Amino acid sequence: MRVPEWLRQRGAISPDRLALRCGGVGLTFSELETRVDAVARGLLAQGLEPGDRVGVVASSGLDTVLLVHAVPRVGAVLVPLSARATETEVAAQAADAGVRTVLREAPEAPGAAAGVDGFELDAVHSVVYTSGTSGCPKGVVLTFGNHLWSALGSALTLGHAADDRWLACMPLHHVGGLAILLRSVICGAGVVLHDRFEPERVLAEVEHGGVTHVSLVPTMLHRLLAACGGGSFPPGLRCALVGGGPLPPTLLEAAVAAGVPVAPTYGLTEAASQVATLPPGETASGAVRARPLPFTEVRIAGDPPPGAAGEILVRGPTVTPGYWGRPGETAAALADGWLHTGDVGFLDGGGWLHVLDRRDDLIVTGGENVAPAEVEAVLRSHPGVEDAGVVGLPDPEWGQRVAAAVVLEPGAGPSDAELAAFCHTLLSGIKAPTVWRRVAALPRTESGKLTRSNLLELFGFPP
Amino acid sequence: MRVPEWLRQRGAISPDRLALRCGGVGLTFSELETRVDAVARGLLAQGLEPGDRVGVVASSGLDTVLLVHAVPRVGAVLVPLSARATETEVAAQAADAGVRTVLREAPEAPGAAAGVDGFELDAVHSVVYTSGTSGCPKGVVLTFGNHLWSALGSALTLGHAADDRWLACMPLHHVGGLAILLRSVICGAGVVLHDRFEPERVLAEVEHGGVTHVSLVPTMLHRLLAACGGGSFPPGLRCALVGGGPLPPTLLEAAVAAGVPVAPTYGLTEAASQVATLPPGETASGAVRARPLPFTEVRIAGDPPPGAAGEILVRGPTVTPGYWGRPGETAAALADGWLHTGDVGFLDGGGWLHVLDRRDDLIVTGGENVAPAEVEAVLRSHPGVEDAGVVGLPDPEWGQRVAAAVVLEPGAGPSDAELAAFCHTLLSGIKAPTVWRRVAALPRTESGKLTRSNLLELFGFPP
Repeated sequence: MRVPEWLRQRGAISPDRLALRCGGVGLTFSELETRVDAVARGLLAQGLEPGDRVGVVASSGLDTVLLVHAVPRVGAVLVPLSARATETEVAAQAADAGVRTVLREAPEAPGAAAGVDGFELDAVHSVVYTSGTSGCPKGVVLTFGNHLWSALGSALTLGHAADDRWLACMPLHHVGGLAILLRSVICGAGVVLHDRFEPERVLAEVEHGGVTHVSLVPTMLHRLLAACGGGSFPPGLRCALVGGGPLPPTLLEAAVAAGVPVAPTYGLTEAASQVATLPPGETASGAVRARPLPFTEVRIAGDPPPGAAGEILVRGPTVTPGYWGRPGETAAALADGWLHTGDVGFLDGGGWLHVLDRRDDLIVTGGENVAPAEVEAVLRSHPGVEDAGVVGLPDPEWGQRVAAAVVLEPGAGPSDAELAAFCHTLLSGIKAPTVWRRVAALPRTESGKLTRSNLLELFGFPP
Repeated sequence: MRVPEWLRQRGAISPDRLALRCGGVGLTFSELETRVDAVARGLLAQGLEPGDRVGVVASSGLDTVLLVHAVPRVGAVLVPLSARATETEVAAQAADAGVRTVLREAPEAPGAAAGVDGFELDAVHSVVYTSGTSGCPKGVVLTFGNHLWSALGSALTLGHAADDRWLACMPLHHVGGLAILLRSVICGAGVVLHDRFEPERVLAEVEHGGVTHVSLVPTMLHRLLAACGGGSFPPGLRCALVGGGPLPPTLLEAAVAAGVPVAPTYGLTEAASQVATLPPGETASGAVRARPLPFTEVRIAGDPPPGAAGEILVRGPTVTPGYWGRPGETAAALADGWLHTGDVGFLDGGGWLHVLDRRDDLIVTGGENVAPAEVEAVLRSHPGVEDAGVVGLPDPEWGQRVAAAVVLEPGAGPSDAELAAFCHTLLSGIKAPTVWRRVAALPRTESGKLTRSNLLELFGFPP
């Protein structure tokens, strides 16, 4: 299956539509196409060949956008790398992917149109490293088809209009950020690119910049609501896609109350971002739950009855063909034709997916499974708690004990006993934390995920 | 490439959304899924097997919708047939496609869920007979992928929202009507089905029935504007897709002036309906021109300079693999990997496609090509002319002469000489008709296309 080179096609059918605004520069799709073509020539002039892996240090600027589109155009494979990674980390990922070169700037060269005029959907588009909350980052192979079906499924789920404009304020080397750039060209939506997340700038873009969509992690949503000062959110936003970690129901409630068209989303790199989403306008129940995208199937391993939790399995055209250079891990992750996500959740009687936690993060205490995210959500719903992280500590009697690190709201002072009693009113006893720490901030990755190995260190345990 | 069975998936992800309203009955996607499953069991009970071709007499009622979705579910191939065709015509098409049975009603049977749970995109979904303005109708093979990519390209071009509701008032055995039913399930849009075209009912649906989209042929648009009585169109409509024949620029102007969000469209059965569209809101230039869908490529044979006309070629995932049982015609139509449409048009300097006419309809007079549609558009722009049809008559000196049959507006009486003079002011002399007929109505197919063979008869020539 082949489709026309998507930026060239978009440049031809929506030439005058805004494609990108970043750092004071605005480009239409026709202008973006011209710039990307110049970069493609620059890459060819450097001797790049089809199939070469090209590392792109994904700072949130124009050069990254140009490279993201130019590398596939010359038939090379994009390997996005974190702009905040150390040189050692970059070198490790570059070696793992066997990249030919690592680029921080987009070389431009004059000449005639360069590059392929179509993409085979089975061909490899990129190798995207997982954010690595546990273990060593692995390179997830994503095809042109994976990205294309993700963009299409997303557009059908969230809605699509000619004046869609998507704000990208998350790192572009993660699949969530990368997906914004690709969806833009595939679907014809403009991108407004910020080099960092600043709540006031985001609000101003919604109010005055024509921004209709934004991708956020839960902590960003929390900070955005705080920046609104309890007032209502500016109108004009059609969708705030919130992913990258569990969304506490209280935060969902607060967002809905402020008028944010929030769309809680479960996704992962191995499925080219979105897997299941609660579309804006369907948040009335208050539950954080989601429906699969139109071409994505979701099951719970073992097909237990509704409400029973197990590993989430995913199948469909967005699912990766595997990990770069890791046949063993690929075979394990894709056994039986389904992606074994390592995440735990359940399907309710109405067919909604509820995501509980990473399987690796599950706490087993007295033979019972405790999902840290569930306990964290309860703690965050306490008015005195701003943030909370929960882990299992080794325990000779129970196997593991539930431990909680909490960030208190300024001026608030619930005692450990008060917090424990609060948990007991909302959770079965086995799930209530019995070890407590007060901290100023929780250890999180760049994309906002809790790093549980660092959480363990807070309690004096080696990761 | 496989996708989940699209109605089953839609029933799971949008269970409570309106899927269909027709004849006083309303069904949600969950209810439609249940009914279609019952029909699938009914088809299996009749002994239908995968690969069987099943003729469906496509009256515009619930049974047709159920069969359109149930036949592919049991792995059989849908062959839509005109409800207005004579028994001889139905028998001829049924024989051509080798159908096992012809159904007018949807058999339902109780039991457990039946049918396939996924569709292979390369598999044959349907054999759709061309409307046959010239020559014998041919069965166009359309795959699941052809229909899927058509629905996706259409949604990205026209926009998509959860409350989309599409009015179908054209025959469902044509690809334009069939596409509405398939797009509904693939994209999650409701369908309102009328058993015939009645302008007042269409207006009422827009005003009170939540209808946001409608598919029309030009004569329907003309009648809708007449029913508005020169006033403005009721608000709420987001798109009136107008295809099936050339849209006169004066009709486009009148529609835009009345506030109709008109989207002139070039399409054909061989490309699963839409090929190129002028999206609503881009009609400001007044020109009837169009951009290809996002995954469809359009060229003019021989790649002449901008503005020069030639045969329109189409490539992409919506293009048919060929004609049923006609390898010779298939090879000719798909030579060089491009669909040779038999239509004539040009690309302008801005990359817009302008469609002039069917190649078979081109008049060659004195060595010059004359596109009948161009002359007809000029005639229809005369205030005294309601409709016009133009053909070439055999002529020993010029090869062909340009002849026009016109339907006058009630009470209007321009003479032949006045009409000829009018043409001379807007067209080069060679294009102005020299033979005239006044008629009460023009011969058109059910889908509104002029039948030029019958036009010839008006001038005393055998077709």
